[in-house]
Amino acid sequence: MARWDTIAIVGVGLIGGSIGLAVQRRGIARHVVGIGRRMASLQKARQHGTVSTITTDLAAGVRAAELIIVCTPVADIVPRIMELAPHCASGALITDVGSTKEQIVSELDDALNEDVVFVGSHPLAGSDRSGAENARADLFDQRVTVVTPTPVTPEKTADRIAEFWGSLGAKVLRMPPAVHDNIVAMTSHATHIVASALAAATDREDLVLAATGWADTTRIAAADPDLWLQILMSNRAAVIRALDKFEARLASFRNALDEADEAGILKLLQMGKQTRDALGS
Amino acid sequence: MARWDTIAIVGVGLIGGSIGLAVQRRGIARHVVGIGRRMASLQKARQHGTVSTITTDLAAGVRAAELIIVCTPVADIVPRIMELAPHCASGALITDVGSTKEQIVSELDDALNEDVVFVGSHPLAGSDRSGAENARADLFDQRVTVVTPTPVTPEKTADRIAEFWGSLGAKVLRMPPAVHDNIVAMTSHATHIVASALAAATDREDLVLAATGWADTTRIAAADPDLWLQILMSNRAAVIRALDKFEARLASFRNALDEADEAGILKLLQMGKQTRDALGS
Repeated sequence: MARWDTIAIVGVGLIGGSIGLAVQRRGIARHVVGIGRRMASLQKARQHGTVSTITTDLAAGVRAAELIIVCTPVADIVPRIMELAPHCASGALITDVGSTKEQIVSELDDALNEDVVFVGSHPLAGSDRSGAENARADLFDQRVTVVTPTPVTPEKTADRIAEFWGSLGAKVLRMPPAVHDNIVAMTSHATHIVASALAAATDREDLVLAATGWADTTRIAAADPDLWLQILMSNRAAVIRALDKFEARLASFRNALDEADEAGILKLLQMGKQTRDALGS
Repeated sequence: MARWDTIAIVGVGLIGGSIGLAVQRRGIARHVVGIGRRMASLQKARQHGTVSTITTDLAAGVRAAELIIVCTPVADIVPRIMELAPHCASGALITDVGSTKEQIVSELDDALNEDVVFVGSHPLAGSDRSGAENARADLFDQRVTVVTPTPVTPEKTADRIAEFWGSLGAKVLRMPPAVHDNIVAMTSHATHIVASALAAATDREDLVLAATGWADTTRIAAADPDLWLQILMSNRAAVIRALDKFEARLASFRNALDEADEAGILKLLQMGKQTRDALGS
């Protein structure tokens, strides 16, 4: 039943922990090694059943793994992979879960030798909560995971990574890294900036009249600023283009309001509703 | 136990229906009259137990009521109250549930004769769903309702209206109409425009990579455009000022991103998080 013997997870927080939990519950691998920097976090991750073995020794942790999944913050992904790659078994596959792909994938395409293969991944799953103690085996179930092969990725390798995410219940989409980054620049990264700017523009004392509308619209502004700085910096050009599109739409709204142009305001509200309705709840 | 003999609700949708349901469940009035334009909607509202009597005859419906609550779309509130006021019993109290207050309150302060008294209200409660069939007796429970007396409002009248909302479980705040409108211009109205502009700026085909972040941030864009046009138009100046504040914050974000100013981006993300965290979940 197990499709892999050993899977190593580097960084066992919410995402890494949820992968470990799902892998074990579904019997996808015989062994799941959790690798991290702090033994205390790793022990907590093991207590929660997310991994079967733990180590702070990156080289030892990846040695027996056929698949290594790097679940660190975006800026750490390339350095960690460069550090672990020389210790991998020949033929090992490496993937990640970073929110941006082009920078990571292009740096690794150039840098890795041919004994190991990297294919980028981005599971569009998360939670308000962080840490392995909030890991959920169903975190990827019915959610999209993007796999981003490049022209140098062996097709069989992309297939195996896609099959891995599929085995966790994810709906897997394949697309080039730059295509992925351009889309999430709007649906995630510029969205984050808009939510954060709205929260920051609101006076603290006015929150007494903030109801569910404001709470929903600004929810993601509560996420970790350090992680989001890394994400925004690694997709900066595409995020700026997405902000351009948002600012143009907002300016239309602003102009219609300035001119008390009821037909114009209504049309903009209708356009927003149409797109939002297209997503569903 | 009943504090009122007869309460009339004009417009028995989600809000009006929830008021009727709460009033009856809590034994706050002996009779609840539902008044509307379409008998079919009223019959549905009665079937769902939201009101005890129904009528499409505004004059007959309000005649016996000590309290009349107008729950129509914002632009209909003043005309409906002007229409019903001559038919009210002497000493009747009138309130509304409109999302904006200054325009409504000032028009009615000038127009009503002294036999009836209007005090504006705004319960900050709602739902993705509309209609009396989605009414909930606990819709106002622990939610804020703002009551907006003016210098011409008899204090005893404001007290009775505040007490009414309190009897439905609401946390009642009193503030002048303009203060209310200035605050909700940011926490609700500009927020709505931002969410709607973001939804409208997103290409339909990119929704394939829209996860919970985009879904939350744009949720309110699905609301009824006609209702929101009325709200925005009736609080236009304050909404424009709130958009100014948002645009200034967004421009800071944009500049920091343009200049790859990591410290600046981080600081803005932290400001957004601080304000969002101050609200709680």
